[in-house]
Amino acid sequence: MRQPLTRELTNLLERGRDRQLRLAVTGLSRSGKTAFLTSLVNQLRHAGLEARLDLMPAARQGRLLGARRVSQPDLGVPRFPYDQAMAALDADPPRWPAPTRGISELRLSIRYRPARRGLLRGDTAELALDLFDYPGEWLLDLPLLGHDYPSWSRAMLASAGQQRRALLADWQAAAAELDPAAEADEARLAEVAQRYAESLQAAREAGFANLQPGRFLLPGDLDGAPVLQFFPLPAILEADDTELARLPAESVYATLAARFRHYQQHIVRPFYRDHFRRFDRQIVLVDVLGALNAGPERFEDLGQALGTLMQSFDYGKRSLLSRLFAPRIDRLAIAATKADHVTPEQHTALTELLEALLAEPLKDLRYANVPVKALSLAAIRTTEAREVVHQSQRSPALRGTTLEGEEVLVFPGEVPARLPEAEFWARQGFDFRAFRPAPREDGALPHIRLDAALDWLIGDKLR
Amino acid sequence: MRQPLTRELTNLLERGRDRQLRLAVTGLSRSGKTAFLTSLVNQLRHAGLEARLDLMPAARQGRLLGARRVSQPDLGVPRFPYDQAMAALDADPPRWPAPTRGISELRLSIRYRPARRGLLRGDTAELALDLFDYPGEWLLDLPLLGHDYPSWSRAMLASAGQQRRALLADWQAAAAELDPAAEADEARLAEVAQRYAESLQAAREAGFANLQPGRFLLPGDLDGAPVLQFFPLPAILEADDTELARLPAESVYATLAARFRHYQQHIVRPFYRDHFRRFDRQIVLVDVLGALNAGPERFEDLGQALGTLMQSFDYGKRSLLSRLFAPRIDRLAIAATKADHVTPEQHTALTELLEALLAEPLKDLRYANVPVKALSLAAIRTTEAREVVHQSQRSPALRGTTLEGEEVLVFPGEVPARLPEAEFWARQGFDFRAFRPAPREDGALPHIRLDAALDWLIGDKLR
Repeated sequence: MRQPLTRELTNLLERGRDRQLRLAVTGLSRSGKTAFLTSLVNQLRHAGLEARLDLMPAARQGRLLGARRVSQPDLGVPRFPYDQAMAALDADPPRWPAPTRGISELRLSIRYRPARRGLLRGDTAELALDLFDYPGEWLLDLPLLGHDYPSWSRAMLASAGQQRRALLADWQAAAAELDPAAEADEARLAEVAQRYAESLQAAREAGFANLQPGRFLLPGDLDGAPVLQFFPLPAILEADDTELARLPAESVYATLAARFRHYQQHIVRPFYRDHFRRFDRQIVLVDVLGALNAGPERFEDLGQALGTLMQSFDYGKRSLLSRLFAPRIDRLAIAATKADHVTPEQHTALTELLEALLAEPLKDLRYANVPVKALSLAAIRTTEAREVVHQSQRSPALRGTTLEGEEVLVFPGEVPARLPEAEFWARQGFDFRAFRPAPREDGALPHIRLDAALDWLIGDKLR
Repeated sequence: MRQPLTRELTNLLERGRDRQLRLAVTGLSRSGKTAFLTSLVNQLRHAGLEARLDLMPAARQGRLLGARRVSQPDLGVPRFPYDQAMAALDADPPRWPAPTRGISELRLSIRYRPARRGLLRGDTAELALDLFDYPGEWLLDLPLLGHDYPSWSRAMLASAGQQRRALLADWQAAAAELDPAAEADEARLAEVAQRYAESLQAAREAGFANLQPGRFLLPGDLDGAPVLQFFPLPAILEADDTELARLPAESVYATLAARFRHYQQHIVRPFYRDHFRRFDRQIVLVDVLGALNAGPERFEDLGQALGTLMQSFDYGKRSLLSRLFAPRIDRLAIAATKADHVTPEQHTALTELLEALLAEPLKDLRYANVPVKALSLAAIRTTEAREVVHQSQRSPALRGTTLEGEEVLVFPGEVPARLPEAEFWARQGFDFRAFRPAPREDGALPHIRLDAALDWLIGDKLR
């Protein structure tokens, strides 16, 4: 994936002159990455015309002239499928775009009029904005680099809650029968590994997020390769590390440990080395409402997953990992997505809940002097805020179309501004509905506060 | 894909003691690679018991004791899906296994009794047989390494026959409108590239084989990446290379040329460097009967494709390419597959036709002193040879079940022993039917001359 020197040099020079910015978008699956990136590109392409970007000074002052797609520098990275995403939104009935798998990229050339007047009035400048989209699940693999195979096995087996454990039960029963010292039976290991991958998949479908190893969920071309066929070995819990290390290369233990190391070296490290290290700015999207819907165990699991994920940005902790993969990220945004799925007066609570969920990692990041902003937004707004009068009382409501195509007028419920406690979960459930996108009108996509996110992420480069 | 040094060393040592052999199986799509590899593994696993391997002296003499699957050395290469293939053959009704995509690998440990008696009678030895399966289409990309972008464009535009040209017409009309000097429009190039990939796909479905670039047909994780979005540029035909070279980096020409170079460096070379160079022996499978069915233009196209493909093995030609990627291959087999689709007395003609089709590359290989053997075989026999008596004349026939499930008794026609000439095509068509596998009985899969192929490829290592 290395570029020829001349291209690297050009990139470096452009970056030096503030003319290039590498902005990465991530989030766990279903957090709304594809909708976010689609809308972001759409807003910038319509900037100066129909886009409503009032929270972006450069746009409000009429200095943002527009953007066009240009050739991306990384030829081996799939292009972000903007046209396909727009086609889905334009379909009848409109559909959510298909989620991206793995990393994708798109370069925009943004034209703007600098606020500082040059010698010639009316001068325009260009900013090359490289957009990257990658699965947040990949960042969950970072801690795996700090483990060896026995310690990773122990950490995995200790971490699951009750519901997660139930999903893992089948696999765990099969894995518990494996003797670390026995000679590895290729077909048997493949079978147990397959069950492990299936239980991760089932856990994800049940709403869990804190799943390792991340690539087991989206194997791509590596489907069926031994490097994706390892798992925690329950028998290790009672074993002694020195004795394990003496087992021959053909043993179950040594076979799985070798695959674990290969995964570290050839799957996790290359992502950090070739991509992550090179991002300038980052936005992390979080589906807080979805986790509220899914109940206390999954909500807590999301908090843990995000804590793990944010470690990748915490280059304040001078650990071995952070020294190896120190990113150049100088601005970070954390956004609760799908804000259009609750009524507007709940948006502040949504942001506060996100901050509460991320309290620990946010403290660390602020201590490490990484500028970070939390906000709530809807990349593509699907509902309209209304008021309902009931027994002469006005109350807020949303009008929208459900995924099944039913038009509804609802009050989806209150978002707690703090982490909900046990009694709270018992007293009140959540039931936020999922809406589908509205039929599209001309002009830019409707959104909520995408402009605020954009201004935080690129606004200072458009001065 | 590099292995740790210790593994490389162990491999080298095992190879040095004749205890390891890397056998590669290739062929263009639908040539029967998956069936071949499945049956090969099946025969070796049943060796010493039910397998009928009379053409293999080691088996005939009762010295071949069996084989078991062990861990493969390359952890990043998908494992050949033997169990899934056997499950398809065991289904009711039996199905052909799903074709593999890309490279896959499987290691067998073969146990045998050496013919040379040791001090102790009854001593057994083991041979580690690494089996690789990869698309023949990848070898069609070798000549691409000898081109720069303008010469490749010219070669591609010149080579198509009439029917191929018709399939390319749509794409060519769109590509002809592109001005090499114009600034590249990212979305437009992606669209024309998409049409090119679709026309390659259509050509393959219509039975053509000589298609470049090979990865456009099976993009995998690179789907949507710019490196798979180039194509020959018709306007180059009248352009001057020096002038082209002066065009700026943003031009259509320079953009496509950069992607072409990236494809050479990051897609074609790594396969030769990481895999091809390391194979010890190779079998190339050819669906001669399918090409006879498809008519003269496609039959000729197959001949050209095979000529191109065989260049990869011709390390006698001391070209730059062969010096860079000199394989260690010391034995080569060429096999016409699906021999069970014609009556037994046609098998000799089938082999002769294969040799005629490959006359030029076979001459080169023999001159270069590469031991090569041509044969016809059926990896999984689907028919039974019968005789039909009609007006007191006996004639050969086949009994089998068509893909649609119809039981038939047919004489599929005569295979010409020499390259058919124009008048021959006009006089007589071919119509070999495709059969589905028979319901499986216990024991090894039925086959025709798979044992002969096996003996040529590994027999000398079992002495």
